[in-house]
Amino acid sequence: MDVSGFYDVVHRRRDVRGEFTGGVVPTDALRRILGAANAAPSVGLSQPWDFVLIRDVGTRTAFRDHVQAEREIFAGRLDAERARIFARIKVEGVLESSLGVVVTYDPRRGAPAVLGRHAIADAGLYSVCLAIENLWLAATAEGLGVGWVSFYREEFLRKLLDIPHQVRPVAWLCLGPVGTLQATPDLERHGWRHRTPLAQVVHEERFGRSAPR
Amino acid sequence: MDVSGFYDVVHRRRDVRGEFTGGVVPTDALRRILGAANAAPSVGLSQPWDFVLIRDVGTRTAFRDHVQAEREIFAGRLDAERARIFARIKVEGVLESSLGVVVTYDPRRGAPAVLGRHAIADAGLYSVCLAIENLWLAATAEGLGVGWVSFYREEFLRKLLDIPHQVRPVAWLCLGPVGTLQATPDLERHGWRHRTPLAQVVHEERFGRSAPR
Repeated sequence: MDVSGFYDVVHRRRDVRGEFTGGVVPTDALRRILGAANAAPSVGLSQPWDFVLIRDVGTRTAFRDHVQAEREIFAGRLDAERARIFARIKVEGVLESSLGVVVTYDPRRGAPAVLGRHAIADAGLYSVCLAIENLWLAATAEGLGVGWVSFYREEFLRKLLDIPHQVRPVAWLCLGPVGTLQATPDLERHGWRHRTPLAQVVHEERFGRSAPR
Repeated sequence: MDVSGFYDVVHRRRDVRGEFTGGVVPTDALRRILGAANAAPSVGLSQPWDFVLIRDVGTRTAFRDHVQAEREIFAGRLDAERARIFARIKVEGVLESSLGVVVTYDPRRGAPAVLGRHAIADAGLYSVCLAIENLWLAATAEGLGVGWVSFYREEFLRKLLDIPHQVRPVAWLCLGPVGTLQATPDLERHGWRHRTPLAQVVHEERFGRSAPR
């Protein structure tokens, strides 16, 4: 296969807020995207994820209102300089996107003896995130956009979607066609934070030992 | 780009144990793979990950011995039937792979006001897993294999690699050239567990409402 095509997807992928068109997501593309998520690696082959597809405007409006309230809580904790930057940053595209995909974690899948989870309880939660990244990249490959919204309380989302108490909501993903994918992440464009170069996060043999340049 | 080439990577990817050759990982390929990981989405653009590259045989042997001890602990909890299946399953390729990549989570990156983490403390941990999946798929695109080893105690790995107490080890990934990638996951081939079809994990509008077929 074309390796450079793969890296193109990885580097084009963005966390989309403002670029959703609200256009239709073709059924076949959605099936391929969810199929990629379901093909992710998982601890003990437990596949502990579920995907709730939300198109209903009433549900999405209720969630968006909750997110806006959480946005205000976060804004209230910032100093004046950070608050000024944050005011320019859009944190969700819940209504502008075509649908929401809520991804959840069910620790009961494959239990009690989940192979590889006895020493690390969070390993199941990790698996769910691997599925989310597969979904995200697949959507990018299909020419669509994804935005992960995390300004919410898990309990709110659990009630909104009738999620059982044993199941944990992990993400609300906005999904849909986009007018464009920004070349630079929103938070960098708006001066919130700059990307860390690879050399700063690679160590050799022990934590804290830099790689030779 | 070629969308089918992207899905080919997603579906060819395996959690490798027994197929490592121990051959050289080209420096350029390793840089591209780690670059893909570092390009993953992260909450508040915090990029809270680090990558420790481990080639030293002494370090790897110490880790492998620890993993084998944890394997015995898990085996001791299984009933006779499951124990018989588990005995056939290889859980790590620490010494056979070319190198270990330990991925860690540093909650201090971008703190205190990490945009998008105030309501969900685990959001930073989720970001690290997205980077791991980017790494995994990139390695697959490059024709290499990856195996996530999770039979270990975090405290053991922290001490082995001088990881600071605020930093959490998330994964030991075995990386390297492989003779082949199995068409079917090891756990399915050995009868431990079968893959769950997509239709069982997709819901419409509310958790528990199946999609129409």
